[in-house]
Amino acid sequence: MRRIVVGFLGCGNIGCGVWKLLKEFDADLLHRSGVQFDIKRILVRDVHKKRDQMVPQELLTTDPAQVTDDPEIEMVLEFMGGETPATEYMLRALEMGKTVVTANKMALALNWHLLQAAAEKHGSGLYYEAAVCGAIPIIRTTIDSLMSNRIETMMGIVNGTTNYILTRMSQEGGEYADVLRDAQRLGLAEPDPTSDVEGFDAAYKLSILSSLAFHARVPFSVIYRQGISQVDAVDIGYGKELGYTMKLLAIAKRDGNVIDARVHPTFIPNDHPLASVNGSFNAIFLHGHACDDMMLFGRGAGSAPTASAVVGDMLYAASRETPRHPTFNNTDALAEGLQVTDNWQCSFYIRLNASDRPGVMAHITTCLGNEGISIRNLVQRDAVDGCAQIVMITHNAGECAVRKALAAMASDDVRVESMIRVEGK
Amino acid sequence: MRRIVVGFLGCGNIGCGVWKLLKEFDADLLHRSGVQFDIKRILVRDVHKKRDQMVPQELLTTDPAQVTDDPEIEMVLEFMGGETPATEYMLRALEMGKTVVTANKMALALNWHLLQAAAEKHGSGLYYEAAVCGAIPIIRTTIDSLMSNRIETMMGIVNGTTNYILTRMSQEGGEYADVLRDAQRLGLAEPDPTSDVEGFDAAYKLSILSSLAFHARVPFSVIYRQGISQVDAVDIGYGKELGYTMKLLAIAKRDGNVIDARVHPTFIPNDHPLASVNGSFNAIFLHGHACDDMMLFGRGAGSAPTASAVVGDMLYAASRETPRHPTFNNTDALAEGLQVTDNWQCSFYIRLNASDRPGVMAHITTCLGNEGISIRNLVQRDAVDGCAQIVMITHNAGECAVRKALAAMASDDVRVESMIRVEGK
Repeated sequence: MRRIVVGFLGCGNIGCGVWKLLKEFDADLLHRSGVQFDIKRILVRDVHKKRDQMVPQELLTTDPAQVTDDPEIEMVLEFMGGETPATEYMLRALEMGKTVVTANKMALALNWHLLQAAAEKHGSGLYYEAAVCGAIPIIRTTIDSLMSNRIETMMGIVNGTTNYILTRMSQEGGEYADVLRDAQRLGLAEPDPTSDVEGFDAAYKLSILSSLAFHARVPFSVIYRQGISQVDAVDIGYGKELGYTMKLLAIAKRDGNVIDARVHPTFIPNDHPLASVNGSFNAIFLHGHACDDMMLFGRGAGSAPTASAVVGDMLYAASRETPRHPTFNNTDALAEGLQVTDNWQCSFYIRLNASDRPGVMAHITTCLGNEGISIRNLVQRDAVDGCAQIVMITHNAGECAVRKALAAMASDDVRVESMIRVEGK
Repeated sequence: MRRIVVGFLGCGNIGCGVWKLLKEFDADLLHRSGVQFDIKRILVRDVHKKRDQMVPQELLTTDPAQVTDDPEIEMVLEFMGGETPATEYMLRALEMGKTVVTANKMALALNWHLLQAAAEKHGSGLYYEAAVCGAIPIIRTTIDSLMSNRIETMMGIVNGTTNYILTRMSQEGGEYADVLRDAQRLGLAEPDPTSDVEGFDAAYKLSILSSLAFHARVPFSVIYRQGISQVDAVDIGYGKELGYTMKLLAIAKRDGNVIDARVHPTFIPNDHPLASVNGSFNAIFLHGHACDDMMLFGRGAGSAPTASAVVGDMLYAASRETPRHPTFNNTDALAEGLQVTDNWQCSFYIRLNASDRPGVMAHITTCLGNEGISIRNLVQRDAVDGCAQIVMITHNAGECAVRKALAAMASDDVRVESMIRVEGK
């Protein structure tokens, strides 16, 4: 039996989940791995706050050094969330030679280069399966199982809140604001939902995932980001009619040294594996040159599923004699030699409001034709008040060409209502 | 740079795929892992056979000892398939202290205890990600990422051939024999399809997966097995009407010390993640006490996807100073203290052909009621030639009770046409 003394940084929802899993499952963990984890100290903001689990009062402290600097503590688990002071505390723990296991995508995505440098300099281990998509083993899969692949595409539903909202909008035909309010009432969306609904959370995760997948640093700052707050229920409805489901996707593609990295509402065909990932579930779909298509589906958040990943990392770290570090030069800038394009290629869903007059359709199609864009599907509804709704899906085209065409067709007779990227075909 | 000398046992479809991946991707592998794999010797049956890849003639041998006994060879990759002589050769390699990476589910499922004992005795590594579901990292996920879970259910589509056949039967309404012939013509089913269509292949994989998931040996011999050769297109059609998709599932459940382990055609609700796994794709759905629901989806066979898993294992083995062994006592018998039940609980789809006469429905429902079985859905079609088709889905019931009820209702007036288990609700 090997005893590993552990300290927590933070003890909210995830911390309590880890406490519970370690305590209730300790005999099994010991039996399976030969390791016993002893929790010695827990950093909290308020030692008197009531907690879910029976965490003993005497373990709590408000002094981070009691966790990061205690020579007996070998492993530090970070559950504070947010960029600061979590980053500073993790840096300190790594500098003290401790293994750090974190569930903090924001601190990791923004300061990974600093954390990694400290880990390498001091021979410490840094583990972060829980930081991306909860229980889903996408980090381990990418760095272990898929090491023999050139990953060309990664597309994920990596935020449960937005997937819950879009699923309900799609199933019930509800409006964004109403469903969001409901999600907030149910505790599935934060009182300030910005990080989720504007795609920040997804972009942090995409930065981490795409860096690992491409073996080259893709910083948060280069990721294009568009949230779901402007999504119109009308478009979800038209998409449905045409056989598409709307999801907020985090997409990374690589073609030679050129990459896309973007988060935006996306239509995918109903028969795509990601289309049936509903509610607060997460999933990552990827394509590698050897493995072909693959998808990992599961709980991307929640106390127990996140704890599953944290304790998985703890056992993994305990089983290794030397820590493993990423294969790439981890800087705060885009990897040298890589280029990020904002002219990605995909299909586009376009909804127009057009005057019901001769020549208007010719104007629209001419604007598309001038940019080399061809139409795959087109639906025109009966005109109401002299205006027709035109919905179309293009063949593969470049983002820049589509933007140019839409700018050219906008006029007194044509209003561009929405443009949504279509992936997965 | 570390150089690892490698020998192949076998060089068919998978062996050639591994050769190709190692050769074409060697610069990337070296850059990512610091390891260079040198292929020194390849055991084949016929050195003169034409091969897909440009495998140099001088590496080929028909003498297994040139692979298993060469002191320079550190890693032996086994792609022969079948129980013998693959098992003997692997045993020899393990006894010689070599790391063995195998894609052979049959040899592993039937002789795992022997292979594991040899590996442990001689400090050798034994890796088998490629033996179960090709590129899908289900082995690594189960033994690494989910180590912190009590896995309660594992349900998988683990055989691509049968999934291809059932998908086409479902989509086109075709009969089993016709679709099988077509699959054989396309090379998606073997000339002798027994191992696939009768569920042997799936049961080998389930034995391996359930042993790892339950941390207790579940031998092949205790697995209930029913293939798809008796599946009637009529039932697939009725299932569709009722909202169910038919899949050949490998199912393992654990409740305390009692387990189910079974392979049979199964109806699952259309909104279950497994229902949309079509064609030759594989997927494993599981539920753990901490991670909740999870599914891994991907290519379960094929040259490149299997090579992806083999090379992933090679890199994983190369990165570890000491091999890891399963957490359980690996014997050829069911783990002590475990019980296998054949009275599993699920819903049941039942199709009857019944005389269109007063009292017949009363007889049917009385037989069910006597065994405590209640009906969830029932459809009765107009009688043709005095016989009505009755299709029903029961609420949760025990297998034994259902068999008893069906035996009791069979009579001159009632013919039991099919009984199919329903899972996933």
